[in-house]
Amino acid sequence: MEESRLEKQLRFLVEIDKLKKVLRQTVLIDKSRRENDAEHSWHMALMAVILQEYAGSPEVNITRVLEMALVHDLIEIYAGDTFAYDDQGNSDKEEREKAAADKLFALLPEDQGRELRALWEEFDGMETPDAKYAASIDRLQPLLHNYYTEGHTWKIGAVTSDKVYKRMAPIKEGLPEVWPLVEHIVEDSIKRGYLTR
Amino acid sequence: MEESRLEKQLRFLVEIDKLKKVLRQTVLIDKSRRENDAEHSWHMALMAVILQEYAGSPEVNITRVLEMALVHDLIEIYAGDTFAYDDQGNSDKEEREKAAADKLFALLPEDQGRELRALWEEFDGMETPDAKYAASIDRLQPLLHNYYTEGHTWKIGAVTSDKVYKRMAPIKEGLPEVWPLVEHIVEDSIKRGYLTR
Repeated sequence: MEESRLEKQLRFLVEIDKLKKVLRQTVLIDKSRRENDAEHSWHMALMAVILQEYAGSPEVNITRVLEMALVHDLIEIYAGDTFAYDDQGNSDKEEREKAAADKLFALLPEDQGRELRALWEEFDGMETPDAKYAASIDRLQPLLHNYYTEGHTWKIGAVTSDKVYKRMAPIKEGLPEVWPLVEHIVEDSIKRGYLTR
Repeated sequence: MEESRLEKQLRFLVEIDKLKKVLRQTVLIDKSRRENDAEHSWHMALMAVILQEYAGSPEVNITRVLEMALVHDLIEIYAGDTFAYDDQGNSDKEEREKAAADKLFALLPEDQGRELRALWEEFDGMETPDAKYAASIDRLQPLLHNYYTEGHTWKIGAVTSDKVYKRMAPIKEGLPEVWPLVEHIVEDSIKRGYLTR
């Protein structure tokens, strides 16, 4: 018997429980353990709510940004998390993530799968005002975690400040009023030895 | 020196990292460990996106529902999680949660704290269309977890089906087309021995 629309949706909603098992390099601010993608997605979404007054464009639609935050890491259920500062891991990231998206979004009713996939692709493309704002928040969240854990993840990857500045660059446009704070955090992290110049 | 608006917001965003440490009675669907409030809030928000076509009222505003999902458990950072089927724990829940809200929302700039607190209170009151829809999703998510883990949490609390029906009741109005599925899950759970009649 063919699955009903609601059954498909529920199967998807059960499958995505696995996002809670995808570990990131980032640790919780109390350093007790690594953060997972579901927690990160929640934190990112609530940051997007709280900081929306600083969004770089008046066209930002917070509903779409929240939906992006909720789905932006889903494909890592199959593709795994790729550390932002891992050059090798990032070389085949696109291919792995595309295959994961094919598998994941096919669980949903066709119209809904197509819509969510388009939203994820838009996020990934970082070209629209919504995607730029969402990407800025996605970068600011782990920056705060790194700063408040004395550079925990930076130290593991022997990350240098020029790489962090490059990674944070979308914030200049997506969250411009917050950029001076990013600079302050990076410079202070160098001073405190959390990060190498 | 007085904290700037942005500094207050960031302090709040760092503080709420603690939601990732608040454990619920519910376990992940693979039964590997207990779920935490941040993961649950993410899952609830994405369920609200996926199931919005079944919302009981045409007035439901998905943006407000998503914001409710993201903040609805924040006060548990200070008040702790109260098991839905724990009568004793629920007797002083209101008082504990009010004190927690006083403390938590005061971290934010006054206007923003007031707004988020009102949203949490609206959710808790379960009277508006948005709150009814959000509450329905908040109940459906652990129902699915319990069903797919052979009644894990129900068994711990020796929960009976009449209690589950009572707990799920908001779904009748908030998510009416999903109610037959809730009945099916509860009846099937009794048949399979996950739940006592």
